[in-house]
Amino acid sequence: MKRIAFALLAAMILADTPPASGQPDGDAAPIFGIKIPAGYRDWRLISVAHEEGTLNDLRAILGNDIAIKAYRDGLLPFPDGAIIARIAWDYVPLAESAQAFGQPQSFVAGPPKNGVQFMVKDSKKYASTGGWGFAHFNDGKPADEAVHKTCLPCHEVAKARDLVFNRYAP
Amino acid sequence: MKRIAFALLAAMILADTPPASGQPDGDAAPIFGIKIPAGYRDWRLISVAHEEGTLNDLRAILGNDIAIKAYRDGLLPFPDGAIIARIAWDYVPLAESAQAFGQPQSFVAGPPKNGVQFMVKDSKKYASTGGWGFAHFNDGKPADEAVHKTCLPCHEVAKARDLVFNRYAP
Repeated sequence: MKRIAFALLAAMILADTPPASGQPDGDAAPIFGIKIPAGYRDWRLISVAHEEGTLNDLRAILGNDIAIKAYRDGLLPFPDGAIIARIAWDYVPLAESAQAFGQPQSFVAGPPKNGVQFMVKDSKKYASTGGWGFAHFNDGKPADEAVHKTCLPCHEVAKARDLVFNRYAP
Repeated sequence: MKRIAFALLAAMILADTPPASGQPDGDAAPIFGIKIPAGYRDWRLISVAHEEGTLNDLRAILGNDIAIKAYRDGLLPFPDGAIIARIAWDYVPLAESAQAFGQPQSFVAGPPKNGVQFMVKDSKKYASTGGWGFAHFNDGKPADEAVHKTCLPCHEVAKARDLVFNRYAP
């Protein structure tokens, strides 16, 4: 009961917070017809990553409630309705940390970089692509069809984990 | 109304999800008397970071609702009740990514590393330390007093941002 009361309180606070991001009425990505899910920036954290090389970014992987529950339950394949979001930012040194540590060693998220990506699970709608729809947006606009054709071939190396690269970080 | 209904639904889902972390009845950290806040792993994301050098970890900075709202509103100093959590994991290469890209370039969160840290804002209780209480836990156990004496001197280089290193990643 206490738990439900707390959850209700949290819901009221959440309902009061202005949405941070998400354009539910924006353009849909080609091939898969996915729009940016409203409020995805408020989703819970799955994991974090750093891409070296030309991508050179710091990224966060967030999941909607269905995705988070599946991860925590160790459920594979992911159930329909699961959505995984990948946000990325420029990889920049933190000046104050260099001062604190006496050398540059802390790198933090700078401005957004390399777009925002989503994987949406719908085993019927996306049956021909492993049950997943893929979408890539740059500055809120969907990338072109050619970009979206590169998603599946790359994710197929993670076939044993239902095409999902990232594990849950405890 | 739709928004409240959605929030209530979210609350029900949240109430159904087993807690991911947080031992509200665990030991309190020395000096500041802070315990691990229940459910902090479910808090929203502030930013991500990579510590090079001996720390060599990937980290996520999460905030409770008060902290997130303050960040998004650009509010400084942070209001009482704000709590910022810093989680960190080992910095490990993702094997499947190396296969997809033809070279190791993706680094992801491995097992937990370098403990979990919290900053708790209470301008009266922690008046002598800039209004912030600091806590560091390793495997759920508070670190010793000596460790907690190192928090403030380091964070003081971020005095212009209310002792908080991390900016909000949009």
